[in-house]
Amino acid sequence: MTINKQWVLASRPDGEARVENFRLVEAPVGKPADGELLIRNDYLSLDPYMRMRMNDTKSYTAPQALDQVMVGGTAGEVIESRNSQFAVGDRVVGMLGWQQYGISNGVGLRKVDISRVPLSAYLGVVGMPGVTAWWGTNGIIEPKAGETFVVSAASGAVGAVAGQLAKLKNCRVVGVAGGPEKCRAVIEEFGFDACVDYKAGRLQADLAAATPQGIDGYFDNVGGAVLDEVLARMNAFGRIAVCGLISGYSGEAMPINNFRSVLVNRLLVQGFIISEQPQAWAPALAELGELVATGGMRYRETVSKGIESAPQAFLGLLKGRNFGKQLVKLS
Amino acid sequence: MTINKQWVLASRPDGEARVENFRLVEAPVGKPADGELLIRNDYLSLDPYMRMRMNDTKSYTAPQALDQVMVGGTAGEVIESRNSQFAVGDRVVGMLGWQQYGISNGVGLRKVDISRVPLSAYLGVVGMPGVTAWWGTNGIIEPKAGETFVVSAASGAVGAVAGQLAKLKNCRVVGVAGGPEKCRAVIEEFGFDACVDYKAGRLQADLAAATPQGIDGYFDNVGGAVLDEVLARMNAFGRIAVCGLISGYSGEAMPINNFRSVLVNRLLVQGFIISEQPQAWAPALAELGELVATGGMRYRETVSKGIESAPQAFLGLLKGRNFGKQLVKLS
Repeated sequence: MTINKQWVLASRPDGEARVENFRLVEAPVGKPADGELLIRNDYLSLDPYMRMRMNDTKSYTAPQALDQVMVGGTAGEVIESRNSQFAVGDRVVGMLGWQQYGISNGVGLRKVDISRVPLSAYLGVVGMPGVTAWWGTNGIIEPKAGETFVVSAASGAVGAVAGQLAKLKNCRVVGVAGGPEKCRAVIEEFGFDACVDYKAGRLQADLAAATPQGIDGYFDNVGGAVLDEVLARMNAFGRIAVCGLISGYSGEAMPINNFRSVLVNRLLVQGFIISEQPQAWAPALAELGELVATGGMRYRETVSKGIESAPQAFLGLLKGRNFGKQLVKLS
Repeated sequence: MTINKQWVLASRPDGEARVENFRLVEAPVGKPADGELLIRNDYLSLDPYMRMRMNDTKSYTAPQALDQVMVGGTAGEVIESRNSQFAVGDRVVGMLGWQQYGISNGVGLRKVDISRVPLSAYLGVVGMPGVTAWWGTNGIIEPKAGETFVVSAASGAVGAVAGQLAKLKNCRVVGVAGGPEKCRAVIEEFGFDACVDYKAGRLQADLAAATPQGIDGYFDNVGGAVLDEVLARMNAFGRIAVCGLISGYSGEAMPINNFRSVLVNRLLVQGFIISEQPQAWAPALAELGELVATGGMRYRETVSKGIESAPQAFLGLLKGRNFGKQLVKLS
């Protein structure tokens, strides 16, 4: 009998999440019923939104239930099928959670073609993070040639895509990232025009130097101090897509002192989550898949080995220790 | 020779504006050149935006120049015309500033019909404040029947109109105003469902009690603490029109602690100024004029007598001492 290792939520964090909030359990791999299929998960996606789910507070989705398998995106291979839509050997992307195997009835499962795009990329640049970047950039900010576009967590799975999409619109693109190594890669690998290292302790001055014409569009993944400094540099009719507030996911206070810029500069500020924008997925995935296949979009992955490593990798992601898309290789 | 009394900006405020920042001067009433007309200003409009103009800081318009006539909306009568578009006796609304007489070339001047709507109302409910309320409500917030709509400075020239427009959309309408007298009138005169007295010291609890279903739309005239408490009560997909931040016009800090609601509730936050929405004026003025003429829209005015009283009346407006539209009767 094959064993399925799973991570469940053992307890809710009090402040920062810790390894002890998770528990590894083992269960037999089940048998698919009629209409179902069994999938071996090759990759697990780790994403900041999971931290918010661990809290028992009102948010845009229900909290992660205690003692249940942690929610998460997965990419894998069908190894048994009793569903005519899927055949053994199909590569599929879904939300099967932090476990080695999963059973699905096919709903929400997406068959992917790995001949031109690697399987893992469907959890990143050609998956949920990529679509998130695409919608925030092209659906909300709508950057125009010559404008200055800033994105935080710029070396991350979402930020790197958002910045490259804005570059394709001929913007001046400025990233905000943590540390000189990430900043160097944001410029050299992803082609941004500049990158501000928020850990260098000169956020205000460095942001001003990198955005001499002010800021027209801001793709926000972090909130907090970066958002506040960006607000102070926004130009008239600027647009801010609020995609994540990772700086406050553990309950940290995030006072914003420059809110008056919203009025003074007649800003649009729009919070969004990509699962509520179904119209975005098909065009975004088509464009991003083509860009990746033809080399027009660069991406990086940080891959942690083995399901046992998932909690540590996740906590590292929350601390910004990853570079690009954080994955766990499960098999 | 007729004398034209004028208020000029004598100095920029350091913190709160004071009477000493203004200086009353006298000049001869000029003669209109070819294509120009001379207007006797019967009413001067006093509006919060003027406080922002007094500062020498970046905002959406150039600062008010020192030693020049203070900017301001006016309603009056043509007393001499060398412009074929206007005849002596025409009633006109324009931006002739804090003075008893003004000369105009007709650009930006609007002829008004006082047979069904009083002249003064064209500076309030059927003028700039009314159009502001109309656009923020119908153009940005788009309230739907059954939703909860909150407006701050609810007894003011903009707030009272916004709330009544939302009431026409069958919303639950809640005002925020200063003091029991204003709150009573907001309910009894303007027909709001409830009103929170922000001066009562129980803002959070009273707002919660008045909005048991949360808040879907917020028309913000004040910023600061009210905005922060409203953010904490916003429902998913809520909309906030940022029209004024009167609580911060004198440079007060306005920290916002509940910004995360923008993401959690996928809010739209839109700053605007009505002069940049030219498409709004004709439909708004038509609708508001009809509502006022037929008794479907209530309004209040606080009228100060004589041009000498303008600075005191203006400072009172900034302190919320007015009730409804603050005007100065000039003749």
